[in-house]
Amino acid sequence: MKFTIEFQPAGLRLILDEPTTLLDAIRQAGISLRSDCGGKGICGKCVVQLLSCIGNNPPGIIENSQLDAKQISEGYRLACETIVNKDLKVFVPQDSVIEGQVLQVEGRYRVISANPVISQKTVELEEANLNDLLSDFTRINASVDHQNITADLNVIRKIPELLRNNQWQINLIIKAREIINVTPQPLEKLVGLAVDVGSTKLACYLVDLQSGMTIAARGTSNPQIAFGEDIMARLAYAMESPAKAEHLHRMLFEAINQTTRDLCEQSEVPQSEITDAVLVGNTAMHHFFLNLPVSALAVSPFVPAFSDPVCAPAKDLGLAAMPGCAVYAPAVIAGFIGSDHLAFLMAEGFGDDNRVRLGIDIGTNTEIALQKGGRIVSVSTASGPAFEGAHIQFGMRAAPGAIEHVTFGADGKVQIQVIGEKAPTGICGSGILDAVAEMRRVGLLNSRGRMDKQFPGVGLDDMGKPFFKLSEGEKTITMSQNDVDQILLAKGAIRAGIDVLMNYLKVSPPEIENVVIAGAFGTYMLPEQAMRIGMLPEIALDRVQSVGNAAGAGARMMLASSASRKKAEALARRVEYLELTIYPDFPMFYARGIQA
Amino acid sequence: MKFTIEFQPAGLRLILDEPTTLLDAIRQAGISLRSDCGGKGICGKCVVQLLSCIGNNPPGIIENSQLDAKQISEGYRLACETIVNKDLKVFVPQDSVIEGQVLQVEGRYRVISANPVISQKTVELEEANLNDLLSDFTRINASVDHQNITADLNVIRKIPELLRNNQWQINLIIKAREIINVTPQPLEKLVGLAVDVGSTKLACYLVDLQSGMTIAARGTSNPQIAFGEDIMARLAYAMESPAKAEHLHRMLFEAINQTTRDLCEQSEVPQSEITDAVLVGNTAMHHFFLNLPVSALAVSPFVPAFSDPVCAPAKDLGLAAMPGCAVYAPAVIAGFIGSDHLAFLMAEGFGDDNRVRLGIDIGTNTEIALQKGGRIVSVSTASGPAFEGAHIQFGMRAAPGAIEHVTFGADGKVQIQVIGEKAPTGICGSGILDAVAEMRRVGLLNSRGRMDKQFPGVGLDDMGKPFFKLSEGEKTITMSQNDVDQILLAKGAIRAGIDVLMNYLKVSPPEIENVVIAGAFGTYMLPEQAMRIGMLPEIALDRVQSVGNAAGAGARMMLASSASRKKAEALARRVEYLELTIYPDFPMFYARGIQA
Repeated sequence: MKFTIEFQPAGLRLILDEPTTLLDAIRQAGISLRSDCGGKGICGKCVVQLLSCIGNNPPGIIENSQLDAKQISEGYRLACETIVNKDLKVFVPQDSVIEGQVLQVEGRYRVISANPVISQKTVELEEANLNDLLSDFTRINASVDHQNITADLNVIRKIPELLRNNQWQINLIIKAREIINVTPQPLEKLVGLAVDVGSTKLACYLVDLQSGMTIAARGTSNPQIAFGEDIMARLAYAMESPAKAEHLHRMLFEAINQTTRDLCEQSEVPQSEITDAVLVGNTAMHHFFLNLPVSALAVSPFVPAFSDPVCAPAKDLGLAAMPGCAVYAPAVIAGFIGSDHLAFLMAEGFGDDNRVRLGIDIGTNTEIALQKGGRIVSVSTASGPAFEGAHIQFGMRAAPGAIEHVTFGADGKVQIQVIGEKAPTGICGSGILDAVAEMRRVGLLNSRGRMDKQFPGVGLDDMGKPFFKLSEGEKTITMSQNDVDQILLAKGAIRAGIDVLMNYLKVSPPEIENVVIAGAFGTYMLPEQAMRIGMLPEIALDRVQSVGNAAGAGARMMLASSASRKKAEALARRVEYLELTIYPDFPMFYARGIQA
Repeated sequence: MKFTIEFQPAGLRLILDEPTTLLDAIRQAGISLRSDCGGKGICGKCVVQLLSCIGNNPPGIIENSQLDAKQISEGYRLACETIVNKDLKVFVPQDSVIEGQVLQVEGRYRVISANPVISQKTVELEEANLNDLLSDFTRINASVDHQNITADLNVIRKIPELLRNNQWQINLIIKAREIINVTPQPLEKLVGLAVDVGSTKLACYLVDLQSGMTIAARGTSNPQIAFGEDIMARLAYAMESPAKAEHLHRMLFEAINQTTRDLCEQSEVPQSEITDAVLVGNTAMHHFFLNLPVSALAVSPFVPAFSDPVCAPAKDLGLAAMPGCAVYAPAVIAGFIGSDHLAFLMAEGFGDDNRVRLGIDIGTNTEIALQKGGRIVSVSTASGPAFEGAHIQFGMRAAPGAIEHVTFGADGKVQIQVIGEKAPTGICGSGILDAVAEMRRVGLLNSRGRMDKQFPGVGLDDMGKPFFKLSEGEKTITMSQNDVDQILLAKGAIRAGIDVLMNYLKVSPPEIENVVIAGAFGTYMLPEQAMRIGMLPEIALDRVQSVGNAAGAGARMMLASSASRKKAEALARRVEYLELTIYPDFPMFYARGIQA
């Protein structure tokens, strides 16, 4: 079930297929809504007005205490308390938007519309006559400012009839010095598609190329999941036969095309008018979407077939778009560091200055970059899917019913906070971090991550392994020793990567001037939580920022700005890859990292 | 019926499908055999040795008088007296080759092998390991001298498996800065295909790209002839529907592919190893082989859709070749001046100096270029197919049985010479020119081209129109008033074009330092014949050269040398097209031109 949230006055549309809080939806849309308490219903800052809706949850106790009767009657709500599950139009008042952050987000996107990759130009030509015998294409060439503009024969073939049926007027869709297509009339909008091809999720963005604005965005599941949740399983499947590899390639574009069709319908943009595309992803996804052989990616030393930036015809790859549309695939850095990492670094301005900066993109694989002086060094760590709730007994994604915060009160009793104020049905990543940090704080966990079986609330399962009850009721939610182990392994992998980078570039934590955390999980996690469990070293909190899907942001920047592409290409040549598994004493770094 | 003539010591092969004289075959192969008498069996200079043959005509009276018994017994023959109609191996003695002309021909081809368009390089790579994690393609890139060499994804896709199955060795087929294909081992030869796509005939040449030598050559009929002998009929057919246009396009490549397959089999070169191709043709053929729309070519003002030089994937056009092979199509100048004319001018060095030069490519349309100082101006004249024997009652091509020379003896009686010393079955172009010139000389024709009905040998047909008997016997060969009219119209069109050019660039005949006549007809025609009927103005005979298929020579030069392509591209920008039909007083020039 799909539904659309339209945000005014920005005119932005977000397509969802699962109920969520409006606060979460607004964050996904990239709008920086005020939310001082982080969505706990305490601060009352996330005020929005519902313009059209049916079927939302009615205002509850929290909203009735934070908003006055007039506001309630006019449809004002707290975004954190409003569950959306149907088409909805929302007005986001200026007062509710964090001014500074809005600028910061815009600054991060840095869309340089002065130099778009695609442009269009309508020219009116003099009709050929015996005194003026230029060929049709030369006639067009002479009418544009570009010298020696070129075009594919498929475009040239359309020109004679179009010119003669259109009073010698023609609209040129131009990319650099190439006419990629011709139309009788100018396109209403120049629209491009950016896709962050994640192993789990495909994030699709429809972008207005002239302004750089996101017209609409939507995530969908990566259908390859049917062939294995982890990438290695999919690589193994692809290696069974060329047809199977081709199948994994094709199904990506089937999903992207379907999602794009929805975005286009909602935005009233013909899908056949998508003139440009940028796709980013980890190296396996990059190889799958470019239909490159993946066998060498699956075995040590895990080298890519191809790592340069490339433009490939959308038609050849199977992307539904305008004839002549090309897919730009930025460079990948190494077998486990893809173009999504490059897009993240580019979007976040790595390489722009000489600050000591740490960039972390948390996922099943976590890529970490450390910048110092002129150098940027990246590593990849197999952090596993624990932070996304997988392999955790009651793990779930951050959705209504998920425990998102855990504390032990002064009375020593555990207190939980649940998304959507519902009875808890599971625990999401930020709740898991809280739980582990708090369990350690109160001594329920020792430094090796072992549970104290004597601690109140700790029980033993059939195998004699301890677990801790977070909540009781309709459904009892527990954290098992195994859950704790998974979390410690994941955070330990990330911490080991950070420590190796600091060791390699001789950086101490206080020297780090800026930390940027990307990835969906990073959006929900509070930096102090990450430090409490030791995932991050101790760094002043005001130096740490969560930026959500920065890879998607980078892809959109490269879509709207050729300067961003050039920047990414220069950055790709600069980023050094460090192979953790052969780093001296890596096992020691890892062992230290996983301590509770 | 196809048969192959192999010439030693050059190693050149020529494939024929019609019987012809060996002299003619040798000329087609581009070898300048001595033949002072022009093939009349008088001079005895065209001596060759048959190395292997069956079924040739035995030496006749002429050869027995010119050659001694030892020579006859060793297989020596006069090329002009030997009819070839079966596979044959011929040795061409050095004594029989015109030294000066050989150099001149080689000079004309000017193959610059120092800078071939295609090259190959075999590289041996270090195997990837955890300390050396370059992607496969970057690894290759680092091993070649080119900076930032690129490749199509289809090539990149082949690399990982090839490297790992071939001990990390790979052979690169390189064009400029692009790897167009990869193979496990170096190709034995780098081979390219040049095709002169004529309205009537397709001339295909297999060329060794490294030496520039022609490996084998063969002409075949243009199968489009089934849809009209003249171009306008084919354009009209193409305009009936896109499917019909596509059909005319496809059938060209079916014929080219079939002919190339034969050439490859004969030369023991796999057709799938053709790495490059150059196709030239008149503008209609150019549009057909590039599958460009032709509708604007068929109606005034007859403008091409596209006139720039272009490289198109062989696969997209339908040419059978190596994956990655591109077809280079040089620029066309105007609707009736194609890339064959450009190839002719480039091959003959137009633009290389400041001499006053005239270039004429005689065909159904005759293109004429006049160079003076820095300018080269070209015109196209509709000379019609008369010179090729069409629309002439007894017209035929220059083959055994064709009257090739006509004179009136001192006794006032007509004397004829027939190719192959057979009973005459028709008259070919050079015979027709002779006949008209001689008929005018003896007063049988007046200055307006009317026949004198009182002249001996002139009869009247059923309509009361006069004709002249050239020979009587089994078959009576005549020239009718209509035949004469056709010839005068044809030569008049050419002369008018020359006169307009001389008028436009203010050139008088004595100033013309060099005349180059191309086209099959030009090879058979004697310059003095052309002057006698007024096709050419009076120019010293030693300034006039016949060069045969110069367009095919130009195509081969562009195949083997990127310098030739650049030269042709520069030349295309320089050549000015002059539209005859709107030239002031053109009707007057034409009226003067057609006078007998």
